[in-house]
Amino acid sequence: MRIVADNLQAIRPEIYKAIDRFDPEPIQELVIRSVEAGVDGLDINPGPLGQDPEKKMVFLVETVQEVTDKTLFLDTTNPIALRAGLKVAKNSVVINGFSLEPKKVEQILPLALQFDADIVGYLLLPNGHVPTGYEERLNIAVELYSVFQGSGLPPEKLIIDPVVVPAIWEDGLKQNQGVLSVIQTLPDVLGLHVKTVVGLSNLSAGNASKEKKRLLEMAYLPMLAYSGVSTVLLNAFRPDIIKIARSCALLLSSKIFTWEEIP
Amino acid sequence: MRIVADNLQAIRPEIYKAIDRFDPEPIQELVIRSVEAGVDGLDINPGPLGQDPEKKMVFLVETVQEVTDKTLFLDTTNPIALRAGLKVAKNSVVINGFSLEPKKVEQILPLALQFDADIVGYLLLPNGHVPTGYEERLNIAVELYSVFQGSGLPPEKLIIDPVVVPAIWEDGLKQNQGVLSVIQTLPDVLGLHVKTVVGLSNLSAGNASKEKKRLLEMAYLPMLAYSGVSTVLLNAFRPDIIKIARSCALLLSSKIFTWEEIP
Repeated sequence: MRIVADNLQAIRPEIYKAIDRFDPEPIQELVIRSVEAGVDGLDINPGPLGQDPEKKMVFLVETVQEVTDKTLFLDTTNPIALRAGLKVAKNSVVINGFSLEPKKVEQILPLALQFDADIVGYLLLPNGHVPTGYEERLNIAVELYSVFQGSGLPPEKLIIDPVVVPAIWEDGLKQNQGVLSVIQTLPDVLGLHVKTVVGLSNLSAGNASKEKKRLLEMAYLPMLAYSGVSTVLLNAFRPDIIKIARSCALLLSSKIFTWEEIP
Repeated sequence: MRIVADNLQAIRPEIYKAIDRFDPEPIQELVIRSVEAGVDGLDINPGPLGQDPEKKMVFLVETVQEVTDKTLFLDTTNPIALRAGLKVAKNSVVINGFSLEPKKVEQILPLALQFDADIVGYLLLPNGHVPTGYEERLNIAVELYSVFQGSGLPPEKLIIDPVVVPAIWEDGLKQNQGVLSVIQTLPDVLGLHVKTVVGLSNLSAGNASKEKKRLLEMAYLPMLAYSGVSTVLLNAFRPDIIKIARSCALLLSSKIFTWEEIP
């Protein structure tokens, strides 16, 4: 199980400002802290890019690459910015991502082939809405995979995101139980060992104490790991979460156990 | 998921002494602490009972019942002591437990019918050894269930323990991965919603820091929960573990989520 920091997002005011002013320092500081926490990759979420989307994305990718060679997830729905970011990417890169929304199939998906990048495919309805449960997610996965195959990319380039929803949604618990089942059954349904990714922080979205969010994420993460998820995007600044992720990976590995491997 | 404290065991010197001297105070203190920690039941493990096994077991059961009405797991291999404990039990009670060892089938299993108690069935070989993996555990489960049916007890009285082993065993990780699969597939294999139980503390047996043991157990517990385990015996004095257990139960429930339910 690979873990990817979701911390680099424009929703953080200091990051928003840094992008706006093309100031690399706060960004690199955050990236270094994330890498030191032990992540395998970084999600770059520039939010709505406003003016100069290409310039901003190029700035972000170059700024991050100066301080790490970890995998970058380019997390934007803006195809122009995305293309600009892909062009300057030297690190291995994942497009995050496309879905059955026609605009995304037309404008985002082809970039994966063009730039030989992995790409995240969200199990969302063609109108961008979140499906209601397990069955619907599976149906979307079959359709998404068929669309993906049409792009000419080999199967190992696809990483399916079954979409974890906030637990506080009316059907949040049922939906997220469905996410676990989707991850576990998807290889059988599609007949291939498809990779999967989830955004863990979505689970605890809303107003609650850090401690409660931490507990909820710590309880759900090992379930994701056991279900077979390949990658988890998470808050790298919760040390216990990273330690749990490492412990899960060891528990599910074919290694010989040693206590040294528990952080 | 029901959680049961494994703290009341004679391996703790203060408990060993208390049993030996028929001193209820240290025992009741530990039981009250466990109940306050939020467990649903208590395992009573008197260890090797030496002299006066019946008297000691009666003392233990009565001492515990004076301060709690939680379910009691009577955790002894001594059928004479077990019978004595069952006779005085007023709380609901679980015999912990029998296996395919002929001595246990003959002397322990019949007590469940006689005292209308639930009984734990360990997936151990007839010679008492731990099976080597998933397949062997399933074969034993089928045999154990057939023996159990011969006792005249209804299926809901059986609680199968697939035997978590110390992670430090040479094949410890593989074995405990097998335990998860056994819990998940057992209802299909036996064709009934059989209850299951595991002893979580076994996982972290050996020499390691409390922090590492805590992490390992916190990573494995949600996997057990997701696999569908009915009951977990655990160290009630690790507050984070109890909180994780409660969070897991909520995550896997059919309730409407509220943050109030996260401890």
